[in-house]
Amino acid sequence: MEQFKDLNRGSLVHCITNYVTVNDVANAILASGGSPIMADAIEEVSDITSICNSLVLNIGTLNSRIIDSMIKAGKTANSLNKPVILDPVGVGASRYRGDSVKKLLNKINFSVIRGNATEIKSILMGNKTDSGVDVSVDDIISEENLEIYIDIAKEVSAIYKAIVVITGPIDIITDKKITYIVKNGHENMEKITGTGCMLAGLIGSITGANSQDILRSTVFAVGMMGLCGELANEKITKENLGTGSLGTFILDNISRFEKDNLMGKLKIEIK
Amino acid sequence: MEQFKDLNRGSLVHCITNYVTVNDVANAILASGGSPIMADAIEEVSDITSICNSLVLNIGTLNSRIIDSMIKAGKTANSLNKPVILDPVGVGASRYRGDSVKKLLNKINFSVIRGNATEIKSILMGNKTDSGVDVSVDDIISEENLEIYIDIAKEVSAIYKAIVVITGPIDIITDKKITYIVKNGHENMEKITGTGCMLAGLIGSITGANSQDILRSTVFAVGMMGLCGELANEKITKENLGTGSLGTFILDNISRFEKDNLMGKLKIEIK
Amino acid sequence: MEQFKDLNRGSLVHCITNYVTVNDVANAILASGGSPIMADAIEEVSDITSICNSLVLNIGTLNSRIIDSMIKAGKTANSLNKPVILDPVGVGASRYRGDSVKKLLNKINFSVIRGNATEIKSILMGNKTDSGVDVSVDDIISEENLEIYIDIAKEVSAIYKAIVVITGPIDIITDKKITYIVKNGHENMEKITGTGCMLAGLIGSITGANSQDILRSTVFAVGMMGLCGELANEKITKENLGTGSLGTFILDNISRFEKDNLMGKLKIEIK
Repeated sequence: MEQFKDLNRGSLVHCITNYVTVNDVANAILASGGSPIMADAIEEVSDITSICNSLVLNIGTLNSRIIDSMIKAGKTANSLNKPVILDPVGVGASRYRGDSVKKLLNKINFSVIRGNATEIKSILMGNKTDSGVDVSVDDIISEENLEIYIDIAKEVSAIYKAIVVITGPIDIITDKKITYIVKNGHENMEKITGTGCMLAGLIGSITGANSQDILRSTVFAVGMMGLCGELANEKITKENLGTGSLGTFILDNISRFEKDNLMGKLKIEIK
Repeated sequence: MEQFKDLNRGSLVHCITNYVTVNDVANAILASGGSPIMADAIEEVSDITSICNSLVLNIGTLNSRIIDSMIKAGKTANSLNKPVILDPVGVGASRYRGDSVKKLLNKINFSVIRGNATEIKSILMGNKTDSGVDVSVDDIISEENLEIYIDIAKEVSAIYKAIVVITGPIDIITDKKITYIVKNGHENMEKITGTGCMLAGLIGSITGANSQDILRSTVFAVGMMGLCGELANEKITKENLGTGSLGTFILDNISRFEKDNLMGKLKIEIK
Repeated sequence: MEQFKDLNRGSLVHCITNYVTVNDVANAILASGGSPIMADAIEEVSDITSICNSLVLNIGTLNSRIIDSMIKAGKTANSLNKPVILDPVGVGASRYRGDSVKKLLNKINFSVIRGNATEIKSILMGNKTDSGVDVSVDDIISEENLEIYIDIAKEVSAIYKAIVVITGPIDIITDKKITYIVKNGHENMEKITGTGCMLAGLIGSITGANSQDILRSTVFAVGMMGLCGELANEKITKENLGTGSLGTFILDNISRFEKDNLMGKLKIEIK
């Protein structure tokens, strides 16, 4: 798994993100070697996007004021050719989230769309879901149904001309032509809030530093997040700790990725 | 303390809550086996409440936009018979908080109202308090004054037809007819922000999963929170750690409640 | 370093602060022996400021609603002679932040202004910066350029009649007449979000408890924060941990400042 060693680590990331996990997102970006700036006032989002290397839009705690800011920031990023990442948190949970994501997808060209299987399906099919911000129990990716979700990811990728990431027990990353799968991670990562949001931040941090190679940057970010969660889970299991420590150790691992020489533990395949 | 073993753990909880402790609330709900969704836009709160099992309203960082959303969500929850929990953070600290809580209490039927002694007294008496969001030093519950606070809780319960929880060195839970007291917990839990808010989230998580038995669900949530805090405090004392670790270990303990077989350590009595 | 033993620890602090690091700020204030209350609704900010001992204004995630609340709270604090602390997060990152800080500085008398070198320079010179909320690489304070930044701090102090704090590898605190430097701290503190914001909260907590001696209170807060970060960094280095644990241990150390008898490790000099 040497093919990511050439990637730069970390860049200045403009995040318009939810207030639930914003602290974790900021710390994940910092741990990856980047620098976050959270700003959602319409008066400043263009200025902020202009000095940043990428833009991450996360709809976790949406409101009308913030949607307008997202659109303005997204247009600025598009005009300057900076990667824009969409995290459509709970898109199927309300009509408002569905409509807002449609609006964002219409007005902004996203480089990467990252969600769980339920969210990405909802983007494709417009269906309402009743599992809140979590993946529906019907949408757990396994070796058996993997091809189905790869097809969904490819379809969404084709429609929106974006790299699509579906995270789950097996992660899928595709730009329609090339599809990667990542087998790092642990299901306990869903027992804390913010692992998906942190990943969106990491994708922003790494794609912003390697805008000529967004697919590989995204794959690397997905692998890094999964591996750091997996190792954190091993540690809490060994030390009889719980989900509070899990969150702490995930950040620890991201910040020690080089020092602990973790690159070799990535389980990434081209499908 | 076997009488809580039959309760289901965790449900989908809609939280309209403050941005100070929202991450802790989300993680506490997840650790308890539930799933949180934070959403405060008026355009979506009815949709979100509809797919959830309970609704938690916390006024910690109030504004006019959010009050309107709370009322809308509360009415939806009432119409669907889902438990609604009120956490009147710092209700006596400003006229605005007092008026807003009055409005919420007028328009929504709450299943549970949880506050510290100063907050619950302020709901009853409408008095302004100068201790911010903390309990006033005059309101520390002890064996000596316990009956006074039980009476206050019962009065508030009678007026608003809600279960009332007063948390403190001794916790009181009453539906006016039956009163429980909980002697778990440690005063250091007040040295971190969010333990009260996390408890409101836990009450939402557990009552939402047992809506036929809201009183016992609430008592169990109060006991669980107190015990997890107490054990976390023992651990930081033993390991010479401080309040940062205290927060982490509280979440660890909530997530390990079954695994560590903590049920037997609950100190809950019917008064 | 005995000259801070007489200072009271901790007071009731009204914070209007960003939603990224608000939880850390609240926990830092609590760990220092104070009590935070976050409130940004214009309807209540005067009431809240009135019951508090100090006011902390942090522009990290600004919007027009919050600016108005800051001005109202600031005027109330001024009229009641309570210390007001400004944290001009990323002031040079957008025209909007620059204009907003100008407005705040025009309408409110600040007791303390705390920023990194890039932020304090930007207040003086009005220049736009492209390093987001972080210090620019050109602005790292060292023994070589220390005098330059002391002069900048003094100039800002003279213009706004406020104590000015520049944090960095060497911290500068000046009221124009007396200048302190603090050599505690570690550069890894910039690898987590919120250490600057936490310091602003600590300054609020300690100046609020010693409003007759704001300069020494501020110096003590700066030293405390630096030392707690430095010791936390030693611990993560020894235990092979990372930035997640760093944040936890900083709070641990603040809360154990007395118990661990840390006063003697402060490296504070009058320049």
